[in-house]
Amino acid sequence: MAESMKGLKRTHYCGDLRLADEGKEVVVGGWVQKQRDKGTLVFVDLRDRTGIVQLTFDDRSDPAVHEKAAGLHSEYVVIAKGTVLKREAPNPDIPTGDVEIFVTELRVLSEAQTPPFHISGDNKVNDEIRLKYRYLDLRRKTLQDNLRIRHEIAKSTREYFYENGFLEIETPMMMKSTPEGARDYLVPSRVHNGKFYALPQSPQIYKQLLMIAGYDRYIQLARCFRDEDLRADRQPEFTQIDMEMSFVDIDDVLEIGEGFVKKVFQDVLHVDVPTPLPRMTYQEAMERFGSDKPDTRFGMEIMDVSDLVKDSEFGVFQNAVENGGSVRAIVAKNAASALTRKNIDKLVEYVRGIGAKGLAFVRWADETPSCSFSKFMKEGELEAILERLGCEKGDVALFVADKNSVTLPVLGALRLTVAKQLDIIPEGYNFLWITEFPFFEWDEEQKTWVAMHHPFTMPMDECLEYMETDPGRVRAKAYDLVLNGTELSSGSIRITDPVLQQKMFEALGLSKKEIEAKFGFLVDAYQYGAPPHGGMGIGLDRLAMIMTGAESLRDVVAFPKVQNASELMSECPSTVDEQQLRELGIQLIQTEE
Amino acid sequence: MAESMKGLKRTHYCGDLRLADEGKEVVVGGWVQKQRDKGTLVFVDLRDRTGIVQLTFDDRSDPAVHEKAAGLHSEYVVIAKGTVLKREAPNPDIPTGDVEIFVTELRVLSEAQTPPFHISGDNKVNDEIRLKYRYLDLRRKTLQDNLRIRHEIAKSTREYFYENGFLEIETPMMMKSTPEGARDYLVPSRVHNGKFYALPQSPQIYKQLLMIAGYDRYIQLARCFRDEDLRADRQPEFTQIDMEMSFVDIDDVLEIGEGFVKKVFQDVLHVDVPTPLPRMTYQEAMERFGSDKPDTRFGMEIMDVSDLVKDSEFGVFQNAVENGGSVRAIVAKNAASALTRKNIDKLVEYVRGIGAKGLAFVRWADETPSCSFSKFMKEGELEAILERLGCEKGDVALFVADKNSVTLPVLGALRLTVAKQLDIIPEGYNFLWITEFPFFEWDEEQKTWVAMHHPFTMPMDECLEYMETDPGRVRAKAYDLVLNGTELSSGSIRITDPVLQQKMFEALGLSKKEIEAKFGFLVDAYQYGAPPHGGMGIGLDRLAMIMTGAESLRDVVAFPKVQNASELMSECPSTVDEQQLRELGIQLIQTEE
Repeated sequence: MAESMKGLKRTHYCGDLRLADEGKEVVVGGWVQKQRDKGTLVFVDLRDRTGIVQLTFDDRSDPAVHEKAAGLHSEYVVIAKGTVLKREAPNPDIPTGDVEIFVTELRVLSEAQTPPFHISGDNKVNDEIRLKYRYLDLRRKTLQDNLRIRHEIAKSTREYFYENGFLEIETPMMMKSTPEGARDYLVPSRVHNGKFYALPQSPQIYKQLLMIAGYDRYIQLARCFRDEDLRADRQPEFTQIDMEMSFVDIDDVLEIGEGFVKKVFQDVLHVDVPTPLPRMTYQEAMERFGSDKPDTRFGMEIMDVSDLVKDSEFGVFQNAVENGGSVRAIVAKNAASALTRKNIDKLVEYVRGIGAKGLAFVRWADETPSCSFSKFMKEGELEAILERLGCEKGDVALFVADKNSVTLPVLGALRLTVAKQLDIIPEGYNFLWITEFPFFEWDEEQKTWVAMHHPFTMPMDECLEYMETDPGRVRAKAYDLVLNGTELSSGSIRITDPVLQQKMFEALGLSKKEIEAKFGFLVDAYQYGAPPHGGMGIGLDRLAMIMTGAESLRDVVAFPKVQNASELMSECPSTVDEQQLRELGIQLIQTEE
Repeated sequence: MAESMKGLKRTHYCGDLRLADEGKEVVVGGWVQKQRDKGTLVFVDLRDRTGIVQLTFDDRSDPAVHEKAAGLHSEYVVIAKGTVLKREAPNPDIPTGDVEIFVTELRVLSEAQTPPFHISGDNKVNDEIRLKYRYLDLRRKTLQDNLRIRHEIAKSTREYFYENGFLEIETPMMMKSTPEGARDYLVPSRVHNGKFYALPQSPQIYKQLLMIAGYDRYIQLARCFRDEDLRADRQPEFTQIDMEMSFVDIDDVLEIGEGFVKKVFQDVLHVDVPTPLPRMTYQEAMERFGSDKPDTRFGMEIMDVSDLVKDSEFGVFQNAVENGGSVRAIVAKNAASALTRKNIDKLVEYVRGIGAKGLAFVRWADETPSCSFSKFMKEGELEAILERLGCEKGDVALFVADKNSVTLPVLGALRLTVAKQLDIIPEGYNFLWITEFPFFEWDEEQKTWVAMHHPFTMPMDECLEYMETDPGRVRAKAYDLVLNGTELSSGSIRITDPVLQQKMFEALGLSKKEIEAKFGFLVDAYQYGAPPHGGMGIGLDRLAMIMTGAESLRDVVAFPKVQNASELMSECPSTVDEQQLRELGIQLIQTEE
């Protein structure tokens, strides 16, 4: 049975002890990382969240204490009192390596079964086992460091926004379901059978109401929920650094965002992020990088050769340009040896998988470039193309010919794939703002314009006139913050004019009844005096992932869910009593076996 | 249509301007609190979250600006540029009363309909209207102050716990349903039809797992949910300052809690709370105050006169004592004139309503005390009772005779009621710890022992021996923090010994299967080495309510729900599409009309 720690009070954390503590009597507590029993000599590596210190037992030890030490196993929890001694054989690998504790009192507070995997080291163990025993996996230094860094990011975030006059205001978790955007998680009501709350996809509506209510600057680290099919980098619940400010336009919000990034990276990683951050319009980002979240840590930009090939005899090129599309290319410098024909064949398959009809290439390994479309080239044509692309001996050029809505994103994705394959992406933190997003996207299926951001986003002043006549031309006061190819944050200035909002809803094809049902109270609220306002939501989980260098969101969330939205440790979701459901006025739909 | 603020940037908040700013050109933005049009002279009180400043327009004003000012109405949002002038007729009632802004540029950013109630002042308006237009109610200074104070409490809380080595770690909102304690809010799973998540009643299980995982000191301001029938001072979702620490016993946790209270009251209210805080055992609190959350700002303590009346001829008194109960009383000093016979009759009804058979009294208004049971008193008996009670002329003594489980709580409630009636409760903040709670409560209906805290609570060391033989005698390492009669916080040291935990479950009548289904993974976790640990949860909403002096939780929550758990502004909960339910594998139970 476990011993009590009564009468002993911890004086130090394990990892904090140094030579300066020599001679001190200390009490430490922690987990046995390793025990080495060499007969008279017993060594124990004791671990707590700060690190490891060595406990020592020898022939001067009280026999009862010595015996207890000899019986310790991995992950036993002990508290030990003893004297800090200088170590005869220092261990330079750990910060406490110059000292050891000669233990005079030892209590086993908790025994431990042999864990299903080793806590020390990062040796690969089946993910499912790790997640089932998450409380053990969380003992690993990597995860402990990650959660500590996440804590520091959140701390620095709050400091920054508080210093800048933002008030943290909590908004409801059980709110009204609005069938907009992603799928809501629903919560059935017991008091109002047949009715449901929704978990928030974001506090968007509430923060806009807070601006109408005059709170001026709002911040919240808010849990958000989306019932989507999970991809590797998604969790059904996630945390958003959610902010909104009044009496501002775009520049004011971006300035606050830049100060935030600067402070958090300085505080947590001691990295200076030069500000102001670069800005790029959506259109430029698409044309140069084929993405609205370009990774700008490397070049390999997309180039247009349409004008050079529009009259060529290569039908694929010619047709693309004739049909209003384009022929574009990226050039992988000095990649001819790394990108073999076989590799290129795989890239052809890859682009076909993401919507392109094919991939043309020039691989300039030897004296003469090997070109997949050379037989169609008239004299000088290929040379002109290569010159435009700056393609030299040793390089590989990859071409896609299609509608722009294909060439750009496909080459954007290819650019990333090739760069990863060539391992040419440098370390670092490349931020940039993407601005001037199109307001509307044409939904081919529904034959209607849909809002690219949300329907409360303000169009740019100079685009107001096209609202009805040419929706595709309207750009929005919307902005994303991109870091190393990841969308870190998204935001906009909101519409505060009820008349304009009405027009916007109409442009989106919403009927009066739909508007009333979905946003009635919000539309009402804007009738009572609203300041110009805007804000953004910053993904805390993704930020933590990048700042810790973690490979998955799971590594920066204490108790993550897996791809099918279940949690392996507690095995939730789970069945509940029939009686509970009856109280909620719901029943399961019986399906045939 | 609304004007744009383009080219104007706010330089100051309204409430910040002072005589020292005289002559400065400033830009302010806000809501029109009041407009007074005196022909040539137009005054506008402009309000933002910091306060109010006067805008002035006169015959020197640009006619277009003057005309615009003349057209302003309450709650219009404007931005104004102008010069700070010394006011000829200062207004000593507001901090900016020495100055005014002579406006040279004015833009109406948003017009406003006439609001359904006045924003200024605290004049009583129907609660339902206020809640329907919550975004307008939130413009009132009282609510703005409350939310600002709540923000400051949360800020100070985090500072304190961070300084003391606590890490803020976010735990899941969608977790496993455990049919324990209050009713869970459920979330149906789309991926796993027929299964449900639960919203957390508290992060209890996760924080215990974090201690097992070695995080040592955990804090979280966590949203919690309880699907209970709402009383006036409950919300279905609320925020808990949730903490847990390892390698500690009771004293360590209480010390941290005391430091917390001291700092928050100092930071936010500039009130010094002397520490250490007083402690009182559960038994003492019940006997002296008839409550486990006594308001100790006033006396009127409960006294026992059982020994004096056990042989009296008053059957009610005699029987109570004979049956193992007691006769106890409280004395309201100098209350004989305030507590008329009629008032006392009402108190009799009151105590009957809360479970007592009746209320005996002595009302000593004149020379001779008027006593409801005088005819049963032998010579000297009444005098002895009055002497014991310290009851003097002018006082009223109120008696309850019954089982202790009736006399104590009934007199405890009566004590509060009488004190409020007499208005004798002084201002101030009286904290105390209640300790040594009974571990088990006997559930008369279910004929079983139930855990008074939760089943993971550690019994006191000296009580372990009674676990099986005399459960009613076991006290727990549980503690509540009480402030002015409100339970602010509740916590305990947890069981870390799997053998003891097993015994505890057995004592609570849980079968192996039930244990496994409810707590299987937690029981498992304690097999792998757990440090001694304990913590508590502090109700942030209640704390904010007391610190702001608000009368309801609604006044410290931005978007509260009403008693039937609905939100009047957005009208949630609401119906959802049939299709959404089908995806979740559920359907509504059809009830007959």
